[in-house]
Amino acid sequence: MISVTSPTLIVDKATCEENIARMAGRARRFGIRLKPHMKTHQSADIGGWMREAGIRAITVSSVEMAEYFAEAGWTDITIAFPVNVREMDRISKLAGKIGLSILLSDEAVLPALEQRLKNRLSTYIEIDSGSRRTGLPWDNAGQVEKLLSRIVNSTMLRLAGLYTHPGHSYAARSDSEIDEINRKVHERLTGLREELGLNEEELPVCVGDTPCCSKGTHFSKIKEWSPGNFVFYDLMQGQIGACRTDDVAVALACPVVARHPGRGEVTVHGGAVHLSKESLREDGSSHYGRIVRFTTSGWSEPLEGCRVDRLSQEHGTISLAPDHYETFSPGDLVGILPVHSCLTADLMGGYRTLSGESLGHLRNP
Amino acid sequence: MISVTSPTLIVDKATCEENIARMAGRARRFGIRLKPHMKTHQSADIGGWMREAGIRAITVSSVEMAEYFAEAGWTDITIAFPVNVREMDRISKLAGKIGLSILLSDEAVLPALEQRLKNRLSTYIEIDSGSRRTGLPWDNAGQVEKLLSRIVNSTMLRLAGLYTHPGHSYAARSDSEIDEINRKVHERLTGLREELGLNEEELPVCVGDTPCCSKGTHFSKIKEWSPGNFVFYDLMQGQIGACRTDDVAVALACPVVARHPGRGEVTVHGGAVHLSKESLREDGSSHYGRIVRFTTSGWSEPLEGCRVDRLSQEHGTISLAPDHYETFSPGDLVGILPVHSCLTADLMGGYRTLSGESLGHLRNP
Repeated sequence: MISVTSPTLIVDKATCEENIARMAGRARRFGIRLKPHMKTHQSADIGGWMREAGIRAITVSSVEMAEYFAEAGWTDITIAFPVNVREMDRISKLAGKIGLSILLSDEAVLPALEQRLKNRLSTYIEIDSGSRRTGLPWDNAGQVEKLLSRIVNSTMLRLAGLYTHPGHSYAARSDSEIDEINRKVHERLTGLREELGLNEEELPVCVGDTPCCSKGTHFSKIKEWSPGNFVFYDLMQGQIGACRTDDVAVALACPVVARHPGRGEVTVHGGAVHLSKESLREDGSSHYGRIVRFTTSGWSEPLEGCRVDRLSQEHGTISLAPDHYETFSPGDLVGILPVHSCLTADLMGGYRTLSGESLGHLRNP
Repeated sequence: MISVTSPTLIVDKATCEENIARMAGRARRFGIRLKPHMKTHQSADIGGWMREAGIRAITVSSVEMAEYFAEAGWTDITIAFPVNVREMDRISKLAGKIGLSILLSDEAVLPALEQRLKNRLSTYIEIDSGSRRTGLPWDNAGQVEKLLSRIVNSTMLRLAGLYTHPGHSYAARSDSEIDEINRKVHERLTGLREELGLNEEELPVCVGDTPCCSKGTHFSKIKEWSPGNFVFYDLMQGQIGACRTDDVAVALACPVVARHPGRGEVTVHGGAVHLSKESLREDGSSHYGRIVRFTTSGWSEPLEGCRVDRLSQEHGTISLAPDHYETFSPGDLVGILPVHSCLTADLMGGYRTLSGESLGHLRNP
C-alpha cells in the first residue's frame, strides 16, 4: 500500500474470484444459467475473471455499458433496464453486432421499437414481483398477456422470457427472511406463467438480485440469474444476510490527514465523491462504512467501535474507539468497507488489486 | 433538448453567471476577496465564466483539482483540504509552478512538509469554527499559537492566515438563522485572532461556506471568501435559505422509460450514479430531487406534488401528482433539480448548456 497516495479502491482478487466461483457453483447446482450483472464492477478486467469461471452471458444496466462490454468481447448481453426509445439508434446498431436483449416495461415504447430497429432484438417482459420499481405487476396477467402477444407478433422482436429484480429482498435481515421473499417471488412468477398457459421453455424466467441468488433455496422453475453485487458484496449485503463480512472483496484505501484528539476522530481523504452517500443504519444510528487495517495479505476484520461517521465532498470523518485512535497518524492508510460497493466502484472508476495491478472501468477504459 | 438521449446535466448559463455576479458583487461591497471553490463545478469552462467576472484566485478540494485548474491557467490556488503528506511530491512540484496555498490542520504533518518541499508553500491554519469537521478548535488559542509559530519559523512555509469552513451553517433554515451562525463564526475567528495578538493584515481570515457568504451581513474583519456551491445552488441551499429555487442553475435531464399507472409514478433513466444518494427531508419524508419541465428558454418552476421518490443505481422513481402524471410518456424528458449539486456535477462529469454547448469537467477534461 506504500504507493497509495489518494483514495484508491482496492480489490481482493482471491475473495472476488471466490464470490464468482461460489455463485457459479450455486447456479450449476440449481441448473440455472448465470449471466451476472456487470453494473457493480463495470470492469472489462473483472469481466475476464468471470469468463475464466465459465460465464458466457452477462447483464448490464445501460446501453453505454453494453457497448463497453461488447467491445471487450462479450456477445450475449442483456440490458436490464426499461428500453429508452431515445437510444434506439445505438441499441439497433449494437443488436447488429452481438446477441442483445432488452427489457420491456411499458407497451408505449413498442411503436418506436418497431419503427427504428434495423436488427432483431431479444426482449424480456419485465415483471414487478414486489419491489415496486419497474415492470408490469405480477398479479396482472391480462396486461402481461397483451404485451406478450404484441412481442410474439412483432417482426423485429423475439420473446426472451420474463425478467424480475426482486429488490424488496433488500429488506430481509437473515437467510430465512431472504428465502421467504425468494419463495414468494418464485411463486408469483411461476404462477403468472401458469396463468399465461406457458411452460418454462416457452417463457423462461430470469431473476436478478444478489440476496435471493446468494441465499435462496427454491428455484425449481427459474432458468436464469443476473445478480450483480455478489462479485464484491458490501456492508449492506452483510446486514441483509446475503454474505459474511469476510466475503467483501473491496476496501477503499484512504490516507489519514488529520487527528482530532478532543473527539476521538480522524479525517481521511475519502468523502461522498469516493464512497457515495449511501448509509447503513446499525445500532440506532447511521454510518457510511466500517474501518479495517491493511495487512501484508489483505485487510483485517472491521475494527470494533470504528466507523465513518460523517462525509462531505472529499472529507471522511471516522470515529475510532480509544485504543484504535492512538494508532493512527497523518500519512497512515485506513481501509473502509463500503456500505454499497456498486456506488463506490462507480465513483472510483477503477481498481488496484492487492498485488498492485490496475484494473480498468467503464469510466476510465 | 431533442438531442438528449441519456441523463445529461443541463446548466443554465445565464442563471449561473448571475449567481457568480451576485456573489462577486457582495464580496466587493464587503471589501472581501472572492476566491470561489471550484469543487462544485470542477469545470475549466465554468472557471472561465468566473474569470470574466473578474475573479483571479480560486479554491479547490484536492491536489488533482489544483493541477487541473493550474493547467487551465489559474495561478493562485488554495487547496482547502488538510494537506496529505502522501501527495507531497505533487504538491511541491505544483508549488514550483503557481502560487499554491494549503491547509494545516494537524501539526504532525510538519516534518514531512519540511523535508519534502522543494518550493515554498503558502499555508493557512484551518480552524474548526463549530462544524466539527477539520481544523484546530477555535477556542484553543494555545494550540493555534504553537502551530502558528512553527509555520512562522519554517523556512519552507509562509503564513497565509486562518481558514474556516462553517459547515454547521447547513443546519440553518432562514436568512436570519444563517446570519446568526455567521455572526458567531465571525466573533469566534476574530476573537481567536485577538487572543493571538495579531491584526487582520497579519492574520487574514478566509471563510468558505455558501450560506454565510450568500446571506451573512457581518464580515467586518474577514478578508477572503471561498464558497463553492453558490455557482449552481440546489434544493438543499434553498431549504437552508441561501437561495431561491429560481437561482438553481443546473437540472438533470432524464428520459422517461416507463409509466406505472397503478401508483402514479414514472421511471426515468437517472439514478444514484447520476444524482447521488443525497436526500432532502421535506414535509415529513425524504426525496432525491424536485421535478421541472424543460421549456424553450430553460425550465419551469418545480411541479407541485412531484419528486424523486426512490433511486437505484440507474433508475429514478418519480411520484407525480395526477394532473402531471397524465402528461408524461416514455421518451419524454423530465428535469430534476438536484438536492446537492456538487455531488450530481461530480457524478455527471460534464455539462450541456441550454444552447447545446458541451462543457468540460475534471473527470472528462
